[in-house]
Amino acid sequence: MRQIEVKKKVLKRHEEVAGQLRQRFDAAGVLAINIMGSPGCGKTALLEVTAKQLAGRFRTIVLEGDLQTDNDAKRVNAAGLEAYQINTDGACHLDALMIEKALKDNKIELAGLDLLVIENVGNLVCPAGFPLGEHCRIVMSSVPEGFDKPAKYPRMFYKADCVILNKIDLLGILDFDKEAFWGFVEQVAPRAKRFEISCKTGEGTDAWLGWLNQQKTNPKGSKHE
Amino acid sequence: MRQIEVKKKVLKRHEEVAGQLRQRFDAAGVLAINIMGSPGCGKTALLEVTAKQLAGRFRTIVLEGDLQTDNDAKRVNAAGLEAYQINTDGACHLDALMIEKALKDNKIELAGLDLLVIENVGNLVCPAGFPLGEHCRIVMSSVPEGFDKPAKYPRMFYKADCVILNKIDLLGILDFDKEAFWGFVEQVAPRAKRFEISCKTGEGTDAWLGWLNQQKTNPKGSKHE
Repeated sequence: MRQIEVKKKVLKRHEEVAGQLRQRFDAAGVLAINIMGSPGCGKTALLEVTAKQLAGRFRTIVLEGDLQTDNDAKRVNAAGLEAYQINTDGACHLDALMIEKALKDNKIELAGLDLLVIENVGNLVCPAGFPLGEHCRIVMSSVPEGFDKPAKYPRMFYKADCVILNKIDLLGILDFDKEAFWGFVEQVAPRAKRFEISCKTGEGTDAWLGWLNQQKTNPKGSKHE
Repeated sequence: MRQIEVKKKVLKRHEEVAGQLRQRFDAAGVLAINIMGSPGCGKTALLEVTAKQLAGRFRTIVLEGDLQTDNDAKRVNAAGLEAYQINTDGACHLDALMIEKALKDNKIELAGLDLLVIENVGNLVCPAGFPLGEHCRIVMSSVPEGFDKPAKYPRMFYKADCVILNKIDLLGILDFDKEAFWGFVEQVAPRAKRFEISCKTGEGTDAWLGWLNQQKTNPKGSKHE
């Protein structure tokens, strides 16, 4: 099938560039993380609520992926982190070539950095298939989305190094079966580190920052490479 | 570019089949609707909460699109509507070929039907690009996702015949700028009919059912064909 051949070739190119990015991150001592999740699950809010602690611990740059607008980069900048927008012009995910281009276009010097945060397009499907050279894949889900998401979107969850359940301040208000949620995560991504947080109240974010610190100290890379 | 040529050819094939489906729907007098939105926005819940009214008004069949599991078809069946699952095996959207195959495999007789409801994969990006022969495109957003989604995901919203804001029971609890949300919808999809509903309380669903009734009476098709 011609279509499949072309697709394979494109994916191979993306994987090559992702590998080159990883080498550049490693050579510069930069920890790169890729945050993925549904639209509105709280990816940008996590960066806003932890911006001061991140800025205090790490020399950090954020790349914000979106179809349109630079709203998220503005929000993260306003919170005190240096952020650059990548507009995918309609594409449903970030890919390694976009990351390579954003680093070049924005003259980002990896040598001076500790942490590169990549916030992917809000999408619980497609970003899972595109490696960006990251050391850690962080998958965020949120209480209002319902407890069944790890079962229904397993390809997103199964390569996660860390699964964050956000909006736990709504647990008493919404009908959400937390045990079932983590049970599905256990089935799909048994080795993923788990966090429960509220970006609204800040609850649980310290534990996540502590884990990030550990990853920075020992950036051996995702166990899924 | 070879990649683009192949992609164009595939999309053309999908459009052809979508056109054939539309002809079949029209010949049988079936109204076909395509419900799209983020994971957990409430697409299945809308069918559950309106199942009795739908079943009372229309001879209805539901096709449920998901990456994995037949949870949604089971939920909709349990609510009293005849539903069939389409597992996309990881694909991020439904396409016309999948609909054609599901109709055939499940021996669905269009001649006896009034309404075909297609619930797409939870994804605010990719399903927008794949016509399924539907008469109405229904885009659902929900309060916890945040008010900026029509601005950030314009390609999903701009072809909507109807935009539903769900989970309005959370308006008093969450920080959601409703005026800004509808302002963005106005910019992107000025002609789309607008509904505010809560699938939890049932509020607002009667108005949506009334609109659906009108579409059934006059199924001239989407103004976006």
